[in-house]
Amino acid sequence: MTSGGLRAPLKPLARRTAEIAPFHVMELLARARELEAQGRSIVHMEIGEPDFPTPAPICEAGIAALRRGELFYTPALGLPALRQAIADFYRTRYRVEVPPSRIIVTTGSSAALMLAICVLVDPGDEVLMADPGYPCNRNFVRVMGGEPVALAVDAATDYQLTPELLARRWADRTVAAIVASPSNPTGTLVADAALAAMADVARSRGGMLIVDEIYHGLVHEGGCTTAARLGDRVFVINSFSKYFGMTGWRLGWMVAPEAYVREIDKLAQNIYLAAPTPAQYAALAAFEPATLAILEQRRAEFTRRRDFLAPALRELGFDIPKTPQGAFYLYAGCSRFTHDSFAFARELLEKAGVAITPGIDFGDNRPERHVRFAYTNSLERLAAGVERIRAFVRK
Amino acid sequence: MTSGGLRAPLKPLARRTAEIAPFHVMELLARARELEAQGRSIVHMEIGEPDFPTPAPICEAGIAALRRGELFYTPALGLPALRQAIADFYRTRYRVEVPPSRIIVTTGSSAALMLAICVLVDPGDEVLMADPGYPCNRNFVRVMGGEPVALAVDAATDYQLTPELLARRWADRTVAAIVASPSNPTGTLVADAALAAMADVARSRGGMLIVDEIYHGLVHEGGCTTAARLGDRVFVINSFSKYFGMTGWRLGWMVAPEAYVREIDKLAQNIYLAAPTPAQYAALAAFEPATLAILEQRRAEFTRRRDFLAPALRELGFDIPKTPQGAFYLYAGCSRFTHDSFAFARELLEKAGVAITPGIDFGDNRPERHVRFAYTNSLERLAAGVERIRAFVRK
Repeated sequence: MTSGGLRAPLKPLARRTAEIAPFHVMELLARARELEAQGRSIVHMEIGEPDFPTPAPICEAGIAALRRGELFYTPALGLPALRQAIADFYRTRYRVEVPPSRIIVTTGSSAALMLAICVLVDPGDEVLMADPGYPCNRNFVRVMGGEPVALAVDAATDYQLTPELLARRWADRTVAAIVASPSNPTGTLVADAALAAMADVARSRGGMLIVDEIYHGLVHEGGCTTAARLGDRVFVINSFSKYFGMTGWRLGWMVAPEAYVREIDKLAQNIYLAAPTPAQYAALAAFEPATLAILEQRRAEFTRRRDFLAPALRELGFDIPKTPQGAFYLYAGCSRFTHDSFAFARELLEKAGVAITPGIDFGDNRPERHVRFAYTNSLERLAAGVERIRAFVRK
Repeated sequence: MTSGGLRAPLKPLARRTAEIAPFHVMELLARARELEAQGRSIVHMEIGEPDFPTPAPICEAGIAALRRGELFYTPALGLPALRQAIADFYRTRYRVEVPPSRIIVTTGSSAALMLAICVLVDPGDEVLMADPGYPCNRNFVRVMGGEPVALAVDAATDYQLTPELLARRWADRTVAAIVASPSNPTGTLVADAALAAMADVARSRGGMLIVDEIYHGLVHEGGCTTAARLGDRVFVINSFSKYFGMTGWRLGWMVAPEAYVREIDKLAQNIYLAAPTPAQYAALAAFEPATLAILEQRRAEFTRRRDFLAPALRELGFDIPKTPQGAFYLYAGCSRFTHDSFAFARELLEKAGVAITPGIDFGDNRPERHVRFAYTNSLERLAAGVERIRAFVRK
């Protein structure tokens, strides 16, 4: 709990700040921008954000709202029409009935995760999660005084938690487990049966399963079913950011068990007031056929990128045991090149002009042997990146 | 900590949820909407949101950003150009130099308050604040496991904390005090000298002063100086919502001591990612002369409303000892009519069609004897409201 820049007798920072690591990729990103400002060409494969702009129909709906100028607060749980539109989406896409009353519109999926943890986790409570996993998850838990319990997973379970792992590790202080399907950083899915079995484990222990489906639209082949079908012990988190191309708008949602809605409403009123109104009006166009047609083209493009990048990286010597089925990430072992993936990423940036994310941002499970590649860049740029990496690793 | 709707063996809710009361005004607002849906005319004097739409130049700037479609995440601390524009605003409006590096753009002032509390408050730490006061303040502290210490204030100190009160009540576990000027619900200011003296108390105790200036543009006469001039033991919270007319956009900012910026950046990356991008681009137009001219007209209109409403309510028998200098609220004693202000507000709504906010939303300091009137409605509607209240209280 040091506080280098602070002069005595300034109170030290709250303890939680010492438990939260910065994203190392931010340092690399800042350095990449610096190099670009110096005229260097950088291939970006570090950024967890699609390169596609927000689809035009969504922007048009947003523009119409801005023209009206009536951009007042919405109810804390969201614009009723948007909650209804999301409920309709569950019906048409997943054939699952979710009443709009259980749908809570949030300021990005970040707010959905925060609210879920906030209503579930008391100080000292444990939340189980996969390692590697989305780094913010453990920090939401820490901010609320809880204990994130990172369970090491590997290719043998598609880098996902399993019902057996949950059953074995669920303790008295465990109140929830977080599952992401597709996962960041690995892009892997949880099979339907395993997800249902994990919900059963949570139910039998009197706890909750939090299922992060924010990459759900971005599954390369086959569909996937939603955990929203699994009843009242599951929180489902989703987002307009990734599949719907609305990252900067900060809009997401959650499907909460009915019994929690009132409490979440109360918390949302207090700590968020409401999600951004322009984004909520814009998102009403997210489920229109014209928008979905654009999104499906983009999904196909992501598939093409994966189908290029996974074999290309394998051929270079990166270890990708199974080809991931979703999101826009490849989590690759880099033991052939380095036992310090952060140093490797830094050197790759400086010497070869390729930015990637070191494993350290995703947990403590052999992060020094892994890096994440994001294919949020054109095929052409990805190909250029691969050539640069080839030259770099063969030196 | 009961959880009525939850079936055993569902784990109870996190304890903090039991400590956070819903806003009672929401119940009244919902009932008002119900009555309106039935065709009843309701005069709204409960809503803490200006009735004016977002100024056209701000909407136009937002529309231009949406046309470009490039609505990606910004850095967690905000769009550099907006941080610079806010720094410039401190220079031109207040003659205070604040480097852009200390300005943190947030998802509404809600996120600014949350981040400030999050970096300052450990479980068990105390934060001092005025009662009556903005209800969310105590709940931000509770969410983080801290203890809000509500200090009863009254008209004798303009409903504000004082240096003496802070010095007397500042304890070993106290890490910060929150001051709002102008205040919600009272509209009163803290004098410059008192604010500086309170910052000195905080400094001498090794703590922080958090100064909420979100109603700062809405001071009826004279200007006010910003607490940002008071050095490195002060967090200043501000917002584009109230004066700038951007409530639903969810955009605010904070001026943080330099030594805290890195920690706040880390937390913001994790729990918010960034403030909404459309709002940040739109807000670049907030400081333009054309926008400020609109805002100053609105401020004058708020002054006219106050100048009508304060004497009119006094004449009816409400107790408003001093005329407040800012925001758009009148906090009025209603002892002449009731010793149960919540019941009074409900009855006033049902029988007279006027919605106001009961004191209970603002603390425990004789809330049953107070109500808040918001003059976020046209003079014509306010006059109609006054006539309805007159008929109601004279029955």
